[in-house]
Amino acid sequence: MAIEIEKPSVGLSKVAVSETHGEDSPYFGGWKTYDSNPYDKSNNPWGVIQMGLAENQVSFDLLEKYLEEHSEPSSWGKGAPGFRENALFQDYHGLKSFRQAMANFMEQIRGGRAKFDPDRIVLTAGATAANELLTFILADPGDALLVPTPYYPGFDRDLRWRTGVKIVPIHCDSSNNFQVTPEVMEAAYRCGASMNLNVRGILITNPSNPLGAKIQRSVLEQILDFATNKNIHLVSDEIYSGSTFSSSEFISIAEVLETRGYKDSERVHIVYSLSKDLGLPGFRVGTIYSYNDNVVTTARRMSRFTLISSQTQHLLACMLSNREFTENYLKTNRERLTIRYDMIVKGLKNARIECLKGNAGLFCWMNLSPLLKQPTRESELALWNIILNEVRLNISPGSSCHCSEPGWFRVCFANMSEQTLQVALERIHKFMEQRRRN
Amino acid sequence: MAIEIEKPSVGLSKVAVSETHGEDSPYFGGWKTYDSNPYDKSNNPWGVIQMGLAENQVSFDLLEKYLEEHSEPSSWGKGAPGFRENALFQDYHGLKSFRQAMANFMEQIRGGRAKFDPDRIVLTAGATAANELLTFILADPGDALLVPTPYYPGFDRDLRWRTGVKIVPIHCDSSNNFQVTPEVMEAAYRCGASMNLNVRGILITNPSNPLGAKIQRSVLEQILDFATNKNIHLVSDEIYSGSTFSSSEFISIAEVLETRGYKDSERVHIVYSLSKDLGLPGFRVGTIYSYNDNVVTTARRMSRFTLISSQTQHLLACMLSNREFTENYLKTNRERLTIRYDMIVKGLKNARIECLKGNAGLFCWMNLSPLLKQPTRESELALWNIILNEVRLNISPGSSCHCSEPGWFRVCFANMSEQTLQVALERIHKFMEQRRRN
Repeated sequence: MAIEIEKPSVGLSKVAVSETHGEDSPYFGGWKTYDSNPYDKSNNPWGVIQMGLAENQVSFDLLEKYLEEHSEPSSWGKGAPGFRENALFQDYHGLKSFRQAMANFMEQIRGGRAKFDPDRIVLTAGATAANELLTFILADPGDALLVPTPYYPGFDRDLRWRTGVKIVPIHCDSSNNFQVTPEVMEAAYRCGASMNLNVRGILITNPSNPLGAKIQRSVLEQILDFATNKNIHLVSDEIYSGSTFSSSEFISIAEVLETRGYKDSERVHIVYSLSKDLGLPGFRVGTIYSYNDNVVTTARRMSRFTLISSQTQHLLACMLSNREFTENYLKTNRERLTIRYDMIVKGLKNARIECLKGNAGLFCWMNLSPLLKQPTRESELALWNIILNEVRLNISPGSSCHCSEPGWFRVCFANMSEQTLQVALERIHKFMEQRRRN
Repeated sequence: MAIEIEKPSVGLSKVAVSETHGEDSPYFGGWKTYDSNPYDKSNNPWGVIQMGLAENQVSFDLLEKYLEEHSEPSSWGKGAPGFRENALFQDYHGLKSFRQAMANFMEQIRGGRAKFDPDRIVLTAGATAANELLTFILADPGDALLVPTPYYPGFDRDLRWRTGVKIVPIHCDSSNNFQVTPEVMEAAYRCGASMNLNVRGILITNPSNPLGAKIQRSVLEQILDFATNKNIHLVSDEIYSGSTFSSSEFISIAEVLETRGYKDSERVHIVYSLSKDLGLPGFRVGTIYSYNDNVVTTARRMSRFTLISSQTQHLLACMLSNREFTENYLKTNRERLTIRYDMIVKGLKNARIECLKGNAGLFCWMNLSPLLKQPTRESELALWNIILNEVRLNISPGSSCHCSEPGWFRVCFANMSEQTLQVALERIHKFMEQRRRN
């Protein structure tokens, strides 16, 4: 019998075989558990309820109503010349009408207190791409970005995987409601230096994911001062800026720059998206707004790798140019998110669970540290496992967000109906009662 | 007077400041000249005619007709449940209906002689992103890919810019109609080795851009054998596979694999797109089809950075699932491209200009080497400058495609009306007559 000598199979790149894609994190692991057994009121009432997905479905009816009343933006037919134009439009500047509409929408969200120049808007297929693209532009492989913890687990992929850039965490804790301070920024910077890392920037999310809280103006000032002193970049990911609760105002880094007469603005870059505030993640609409001319030019060139369908640009340009629609949407969406937030916080309080006081976002930051056997990551994940597999709620453990304090969890509340949220709260209530009894 | 000491301004990455984006190439330079003075029959009859853009506008009326007769795929309104579903759909697998439709369409283009599994289709926002993404997966920074010349100038950006990968050209020439041979592949491989480059793959375009010609089966066999012997990857960019002229058949690398029983298929990856064959570059639809399970999994994860709008996926899933439409489209499109090709080749012949015999694509490969003062790149670019600024035709010089033989130009013929093409041919004719007179 002839022995077949096998050649070694063809190899892949280091990036391809690395684990930096992050899908093995419990953050994504919980999604898989949900996918294999999703809750359905009638057909699978004991299935897993998905509370690990920051999706906004509370204001969808407003989008649907707009589309019912305005069919032109999305339909083509006899006499509609838009199709040919749009199908061919692939200029990486994007449709001018859409960039203008995005600039106006971003101004509206900030109550007109910041101005945005449509020529500084770079379009990307989602904020995921925007954050990666900025990282390619701001840092070399092996360099580092500082990111306050807890942070969105996807950053481990977006900022690191293909860029080769590292993240140095800025450790925040509950002693001051997880706020960034000059001291923790300095400590992280020193930590980076001690590892011989060239720190090129700091990336914040405002409002914060997973905290569900806005950053105060005074803190923003300190962060900008820090970036200036270190001569590094500041990326402000503001994808939840239109999802603040009704009573409170959001302060963008753009407003801080405005009050400083745009001094030092060339180090500042804002990321925005329509996935959260407008609830359109499937449409893949992200933007970079940079005050740095070179970054704008380079980001535009790079956006060739991640352009937005012109069909979608056209639809959204029409929708966002309708001031009546956007005003009503933003107001109503805030009111509804507030109601949801109050509902979940009250429900958790009834179950004797405390949350960080939130004012924005599609989630709350829940403190289950009193339930841990030990104040460790292992204990946190053991508790998470019970909640996922027995209580059947997929929530995101703080450790997946690199939180340095065990026992915190992110709980999403806007990707389901009120009824489903009620079921989830009942399950938590029952679980807590059982624990107290045992 | 106080002297203000300026801090050095905040720096950008090496990728950001590199010239690898390639926009300074005459290939893109010609576009800018066109943009500043575009031809218009009535308003600017002496403007520049754009013949440097490989866009297919000859079959647009068929798409428009489909949309007129089928409004559901693109419009939403009362009672249409599709909007919510699509707006939220962000799974990086893409809509199953769309992947299935793409697989079928790719099979149809190959006359059913190759089968495609929808689960191996990875969606990306255009072929630009697909080629970059594959490069990230197949090669490490500093490694090399072999690419036969002349090649699409955008590859210098797509394969190199953010990946740090290098291109080693496989030099082909007119002695055998620019066909790839085992000898030139071997020579390029040795050249890579002599520069201490780790050659990880070979990338071909079939049909070739800029040659406008299909690769013969025997040549494909040799290329696959070469990749196998060297144990490297083979990427086959087949974005013009549906744009072959009526009488002739396209042979995909998929068919070669099929006849070999898929032996060695794990090194083969196909890139496809709807930008050329369907003339929809604005919709940003690209795909990777890989026979390698690890590449499929990794490419899907990476496609998070470059997803296609689900609105667009939905529209195209409907359109491509309509067999009557796709059959008629492919047939008619081929017939019309053939007519256009014959028209330009005949027109050029009348002006005593020869072209490489073509059988696919949206361009012809024109030989102006007899007009060069010297057989050099400088002479070629001098001639190109005259044609761009005096004859006012934007064509692409072969040197921008890394052609090693001076005097060849790519001339696009499908991005304009027949009338405009006629004007362009008249200008060339006049130019050639003047040259003969002087």
